[in-house]
Amino acid sequence: MKIGIIGATGYGGLELIRILTNHPNVHEIHVFSSSEENIHISHKYTHLMNIIEQPLQAISIDTLAKLDVVFTGTPAGVASTILPDLLGKGPKLIDLSGDFRIQDPTIYETWYQKPAAPQQAVQQAVYGLPEWNRQQIQTAELIANPGCYPTATLLSLLPLIKEGLIDPAHLYTDAKSGASGAGNKPSQLTHYSELNENFSIYKINSHQHIPEIEQTVTTLTGKTPTLSFNTHLIPMTRGIMATSYAPLTAGTTNEQIQEALKTAYDKEPFVRVLADKPVFSTKQVYGSNFCDIQVTIDPRTNRATIVGVIDNLMKGAAGQAVQNMNLMCGLDEKAGLTLVPLMI
Amino acid sequence: MKIGIIGATGYGGLELIRILTNHPNVHEIHVFSSSEENIHISHKYTHLMNIIEQPLQAISIDTLAKLDVVFTGTPAGVASTILPDLLGKGPKLIDLSGDFRIQDPTIYETWYQKPAAPQQAVQQAVYGLPEWNRQQIQTAELIANPGCYPTATLLSLLPLIKEGLIDPAHLYTDAKSGASGAGNKPSQLTHYSELNENFSIYKINSHQHIPEIEQTVTTLTGKTPTLSFNTHLIPMTRGIMATSYAPLTAGTTNEQIQEALKTAYDKEPFVRVLADKPVFSTKQVYGSNFCDIQVTIDPRTNRATIVGVIDNLMKGAAGQAVQNMNLMCGLDEKAGLTLVPLMI
Amino acid sequence: MKIGIIGATGYGGLELIRILTNHPNVHEIHVFSSSEENIHISHKYTHLMNIIEQPLQAISIDTLAKLDVVFTGTPAGVASTILPDLLGKGPKLIDLSGDFRIQDPTIYETWYQKPAAPQQAVQQAVYGLPEWNRQQIQTAELIANPGCYPTATLLSLLPLIKEGLIDPAHLYTDAKSGASGAGNKPSQLTHYSELNENFSIYKINSHQHIPEIEQTVTTLTGKTPTLSFNTHLIPMTRGIMATSYAPLTAGTTNEQIQEALKTAYDKEPFVRVLADKPVFSTKQVYGSNFCDIQVTIDPRTNRATIVGVIDNLMKGAAGQAVQNMNLMCGLDEKAGLTLVPLMI
Amino acid sequence: MKIGIIGATGYGGLELIRILTNHPNVHEIHVFSSSEENIHISHKYTHLMNIIEQPLQAISIDTLAKLDVVFTGTPAGVASTILPDLLGKGPKLIDLSGDFRIQDPTIYETWYQKPAAPQQAVQQAVYGLPEWNRQQIQTAELIANPGCYPTATLLSLLPLIKEGLIDPAHLYTDAKSGASGAGNKPSQLTHYSELNENFSIYKINSHQHIPEIEQTVTTLTGKTPTLSFNTHLIPMTRGIMATSYAPLTAGTTNEQIQEALKTAYDKEPFVRVLADKPVFSTKQVYGSNFCDIQVTIDPRTNRATIVGVIDNLMKGAAGQAVQNMNLMCGLDEKAGLTLVPLMI
Repeated sequence: MKIGIIGATGYGGLELIRILTNHPNVHEIHVFSSSEENIHISHKYTHLMNIIEQPLQAISIDTLAKLDVVFTGTPAGVASTILPDLLGKGPKLIDLSGDFRIQDPTIYETWYQKPAAPQQAVQQAVYGLPEWNRQQIQTAELIANPGCYPTATLLSLLPLIKEGLIDPAHLYTDAKSGASGAGNKPSQLTHYSELNENFSIYKINSHQHIPEIEQTVTTLTGKTPTLSFNTHLIPMTRGIMATSYAPLTAGTTNEQIQEALKTAYDKEPFVRVLADKPVFSTKQVYGSNFCDIQVTIDPRTNRATIVGVIDNLMKGAAGQAVQNMNLMCGLDEKAGLTLVPLMI
Repeated sequence: MKIGIIGATGYGGLELIRILTNHPNVHEIHVFSSSEENIHISHKYTHLMNIIEQPLQAISIDTLAKLDVVFTGTPAGVASTILPDLLGKGPKLIDLSGDFRIQDPTIYETWYQKPAAPQQAVQQAVYGLPEWNRQQIQTAELIANPGCYPTATLLSLLPLIKEGLIDPAHLYTDAKSGASGAGNKPSQLTHYSELNENFSIYKINSHQHIPEIEQTVTTLTGKTPTLSFNTHLIPMTRGIMATSYAPLTAGTTNEQIQEALKTAYDKEPFVRVLADKPVFSTKQVYGSNFCDIQVTIDPRTNRATIVGVIDNLMKGAAGQAVQNMNLMCGLDEKAGLTLVPLMI
Repeated sequence: MKIGIIGATGYGGLELIRILTNHPNVHEIHVFSSSEENIHISHKYTHLMNIIEQPLQAISIDTLAKLDVVFTGTPAGVASTILPDLLGKGPKLIDLSGDFRIQDPTIYETWYQKPAAPQQAVQQAVYGLPEWNRQQIQTAELIANPGCYPTATLLSLLPLIKEGLIDPAHLYTDAKSGASGAGNKPSQLTHYSELNENFSIYKINSHQHIPEIEQTVTTLTGKTPTLSFNTHLIPMTRGIMATSYAPLTAGTTNEQIQEALKTAYDKEPFVRVLADKPVFSTKQVYGSNFCDIQVTIDPRTNRATIVGVIDNLMKGAAGQAVQNMNLMCGLDEKAGLTLVPLMI
Repeated sequence: MKIGIIGATGYGGLELIRILTNHPNVHEIHVFSSSEENIHISHKYTHLMNIIEQPLQAISIDTLAKLDVVFTGTPAGVASTILPDLLGKGPKLIDLSGDFRIQDPTIYETWYQKPAAPQQAVQQAVYGLPEWNRQQIQTAELIANPGCYPTATLLSLLPLIKEGLIDPAHLYTDAKSGASGAGNKPSQLTHYSELNENFSIYKINSHQHIPEIEQTVTTLTGKTPTLSFNTHLIPMTRGIMATSYAPLTAGTTNEQIQEALKTAYDKEPFVRVLADKPVFSTKQVYGSNFCDIQVTIDPRTNRATIVGVIDNLMKGAAGQAVQNMNLMCGLDEKAGLTLVPLMI
């Protein structure tokens, strides 16, 4: 297969290169950039020396149309100007940005403060959460790859909401991410001396992933949650933890909860359910495509503590995107994604 | 004044030395240890060379009784075997551990899994949260210095609970701490290679600071909260953020909330109330005795996001202990504590 | 192939599992431990859940003898009590510790402060630096896998010493390592709060890798170096940089130096030679088996600055061990080792 | 005293504010900026809330002339356009940048790639290394405050060179710094995700501090060194270690070396000489004005390993600047500078 990556020097793009270089079905990777064309990618990112030696190409619909799969790992508002022109031209399309995730253009424009993507393309886009949407993904032409925070939050909450075990009217998610989620563009917030040895809350009650989570909960469970969702920046590079809290519904037992998780994920290759771990960490999935989940009942308060961890660049971005590619192309869903976590 | 520090090589003890070395009213510092006597403290901790040059002394009630103030920065269960013998003998006593914080011995023993301190001493102990207990502290002989998590949580929640602005029956605190809170004893959890570039949840729903927070809320506001409280380990050394969530009570406005905070803290030297900061960070108080607080209303969910940050070794331990010492000894409450945060 | 790993919960052992899980020629991995038998490895290291599910086995020569390859990733002095009993019994043996690296037992005992390994085994052992010893490795039964510091130092220095371009009588190597080199055992030095935001020099002029480097330079180039070698601890987990300095010999040009590097490494799959990079970093090889090298001439002083970087757990330990296994077993030298660096 | 700080939001400026806020002789601090005038400094750097509440002022010679001391913590090339106009107008002037450090304008322009400062001002400037230049500093009007790397390098090397104990013709300094040395301006090099868990060499053989070190060695010892000097970036915020190597001159003993250090620094309040510490770290001076030094002889190679550590923002910038201010103004040299290191 021939693959194109638009935004190849972004962190999502670099992670796609890391995965696809060893993907058994990928024979060619072509890298594109809207802003750095002609720069040799291994000159900018030395770690790619001898691995991918080619200049960044300018974006051309004709060139892209000849490829089998095109990924976009671009800032908000860019993919929506490129991918609609490729629809129907051949390649499977997978967008890692938020451009095609929100069905309602008014909601998109409110939270993203940008014009929404063409609505025909948005309607065609399938939300690429394989564990909950596998069938639709297999036949999709355009995937809206889920956001990093929504992936960790949704995978851990959905089984409990769907089975009516927690009360979606009183839902709280306290999410934390490493700095790579902010992308490769330097800023004061991500300046080393100011982020190191520091822990911050940001975008209080206003992160653009909130409507994505709510829309997906409603679509997949039929229930409308009331969710408080806040985001924090951890002084580390990779990893997301979403810690969620909700009251149990009347009569809910721990057995029912563990059973719901088992039913949802027992056969899933990339979701691991744990129980009773006294310590539960982002690093147990570092560099891999796993989402690890643990739910604990607090009998004192009759509430659940629901924890999901992912590597934000893998299951939260490039890894999930390749999982979607595998499904769309009829490949083994795990192809290229058996990378073992780096605990150390 | 002559000061004694028991557990001087613990992190609370080292921080007391850092503060008291420049305290205008302190003339002598004596360092004690139950396990490392005769070791020269500056040999173990080189940074103290030329600053405090003396061997650690064995604990002796007679020697301690001649001092003006005795601090204990010892593991749980140690201070309760020492300080009761010093009651009434002269020195003001300030315990940085949890030994004297919990009034009900059954609750102490349930959460700490250790025998409770002698009850007469516990009854005499005053909970050393100056902003809410100043008068009692001024006349106390024995201070139970608050825990690090409770300080950040209580200072941010108390004004809102007291004024009836949030619903204490639906309270959630998601707390995060740097590694120094775990003390100076090496363990797998705090082994550099396993904590670095990692973020963990630990002691899920079972941290021993839970009963301390609940007891204090009840004592100071008359209301009994139902609190979910979870703790996380941040890959950094110093700093705590407590992010709390609660529904607003009917009719509560942002103005009322800001007014309640202002009323509580406007004249406090060590509590700073902020508003509308898009980013709010632990490092803004690093190395200082400040607790910074910001409360934000989410009109979408009608809930409050309540954030408190402290340096866990300062306002969460040694700094607050010195603040209590100043109050007990009739000194300027700020003496020795005007250290400016190290933002960088 | 069936593989055994002794010391599987050490960091070298965990890294072998990470690599070998995706190695195309490895069908079974068996994990052994001298101290933690019967513990399920994925219970201790959660990241291995669903990846390797088996209890740690006690060490048994009979069991080990049935395997194709046995790796030892054990503390100094352990492999020398196990591997000699396996010589001639079938398995290829690869020791990641220093037990079989030093030919002269007096030198071993001076620097390691432990009894030397049985000399017959030491004599049989081949030093596993493939770029310089490939032929001997291919027919070896027992490999002394090089130390982490020596790998970075030797690969960068050897071409220049061998070609007589720098003066081995005035050699200085200032080496720096991430904390994972210290292994998985907690200590004060590697306690998070004391290593974080800190940079230390340790084992000044006394690191046990000094005789390994000197012996190898002499063996491979015929020249006896006078080397100052010091080691520093970087507040990070993975990565080594060895910065070396030496006067150029009379008439040496930059062209000769670049030519010597090219001659040595142009066809090597895991050594990348760079030039003129203004910034040169450990992370460009993170998680991969590469050693990246850059040599710069300083015309002002007529000296060379020679920099080599590796991932200490990969090319400095498990990666190089698998490279040796591939050579010993007649496999593609790159099998299992095409992992792309994680720059982010 | 009334103090002015130009470049107050730079890291040197922020550190001056941290020190001077608690300086016993400082009554007013005025903050100036050439680029952010009218911005409230505590709005940009929240940690200063309630500590320094004033807008940044535009630079005005008239206003500055009324102050007692003016510090410039500005990028290269800025102070040279301001301070000459203040000479003779009253205030003591202390420049933290490199503008006035290099006597020879040709050398300045070669290494800094900028026009040199007016030569009359450069001639008047005194190099502010108190331990070696105290008398001149006391009567100076304009101080060229030493660079961070030169301070750590010079303080550790000077006694040995001066006493002829090491050979200045074979001098190697391998220097390492935390990221705050790069200042507050975001860049790719200091972007959190790319600097974290990474260690880099940069400006190989070309750092602009090289001529400063050479000039000072020559001026203060009469000897002309041949120095290799390279700089590395450590993934941490504060701290510099300079590790230097040199052959001992014939007959030099360890006793002579320790004696030379003792002679040089025994009465110095901010230089601490250690010996025989197996681990020697930047954090032992964190947040303080100390320079700690340890020299070790390697009998195997007959060379010395010379290590100096400082906090780059303190003894390497703002702390040393205040020490110079104290000397220029006839105050206690230690005033405001008794801050104890934060080992934790």
